[in-house]
Amino acid sequence: MEEHYPQSCPFCKISLAYPCDDRSPIPTSPDPERIDPQCHLLLSTPLVLAFLDILPISQGHVLLITREHAEKLSDIPQHTNTSSRSPSLWRRSFPYEGTTPSQALGFWMPLISRALCKTLEFEDWNVVQNNGIRAAQVVPHVHFHFIPRYPDDRKARTGTGKVDVGMLKSWKMFGKGAREELDDDEGKEVAALIRSGLKEEVEKLSMSRSKL
Amino acid sequence: MEEHYPQSCPFCKISLAYPCDDRSPIPTSPDPERIDPQCHLLLSTPLVLAFLDILPISQGHVLLITREHAEKLSDIPQHTNTSSRSPSLWRRSFPYEGTTPSQALGFWMPLISRALCKTLEFEDWNVVQNNGIRAAQVVPHVHFHFIPRYPDDRKARTGTGKVDVGMLKSWKMFGKGAREELDDDEGKEVAALIRSGLKEEVEKLSMSRSKL
Repeated sequence: MEEHYPQSCPFCKISLAYPCDDRSPIPTSPDPERIDPQCHLLLSTPLVLAFLDILPISQGHVLLITREHAEKLSDIPQHTNTSSRSPSLWRRSFPYEGTTPSQALGFWMPLISRALCKTLEFEDWNVVQNNGIRAAQVVPHVHFHFIPRYPDDRKARTGTGKVDVGMLKSWKMFGKGAREELDDDEGKEVAALIRSGLKEEVEKLSMSRSKL
Repeated sequence: MEEHYPQSCPFCKISLAYPCDDRSPIPTSPDPERIDPQCHLLLSTPLVLAFLDILPISQGHVLLITREHAEKLSDIPQHTNTSSRSPSLWRRSFPYEGTTPSQALGFWMPLISRALCKTLEFEDWNVVQNNGIRAAQVVPHVHFHFIPRYPDDRKARTGTGKVDVGMLKSWKMFGKGAREELDDDEGKEVAALIRSGLKEEVEKLSMSRSKL
């Protein structure tokens, strides 16, 4: 257990608190208070998870991580850990994400992107993954940032929209200083929106596959 | 043809100039002069390609792209285009990268990272993928940047090493202005090194799979 989910890692805590549901990769109404600080979960599969960044650079700032611990991108194993929770059973009901953590990371990127663009109504975004201190990595567990880039005059879709979308000007911003903590109510609302978008994407996928 | 590889797209030109080889994903000694500007190819499969950025932010700045045209991450189809070059034949000899472009992008990320770290001797790097003008996307064809972050006192591994590794200070740097063109001789040397690293990674993969 300790090998795959070190207790000191905040993202491993999330991974352990939200095991994957055998019925769907998109949780219906996950309890954000299962851990502290709250986690606004968007996606949970045998191989990956996604949730809202608690220090968002802009509204809808999402993190996509591997379920098992890997510090850097180079540490991701090419094989699935056979001890993970019934992956073969899960794969029969959802055979789309691939068979290894890295394939699954790639698989979900277009789906997360489409769900974000559609539900939060933006067109431009960055995907960023940092490895090591010199690359501004803060949490030592592989994570891809999805950072919406709204037009300057864009109004927040929901909640307070306190975060200044013009903030993303420098790599330094990926550190803690300049980012504001996610408001829990806003997080709840935004996460529900994104999950609805992800559910639509997953349904489209299943429908187009069943037509083949 | 035009639908999948628009003639106006510089990365589609690379994709068309370097079709995948049925024997190996890592080309042995690809001719950089097959197109203009030169292309220092690292990887070529039915689903993805990788090559050196011609305006590197640091030495070993690699781009990983989808073989078929997709402007943004959200435009990547979840299905493989069945018209692409004998993918099923290829998959029998190299069954590792997954079956869709997005799975393949994810699959190659750890391998490219390990090959880069090992051959160019660095430990930290950023992976960045930009979508749209407000996110600093320049070429309208999905590409992931792999940007080594060397220690300040690091000497170039080969060639002139003209590029200032401290340059990556702002998102603006992803535009053209501040980056220096890749020297063709240096590009050739660096690409050969990275390909040797990638070949090792692919061999390790095949060996560990054959043991299963």
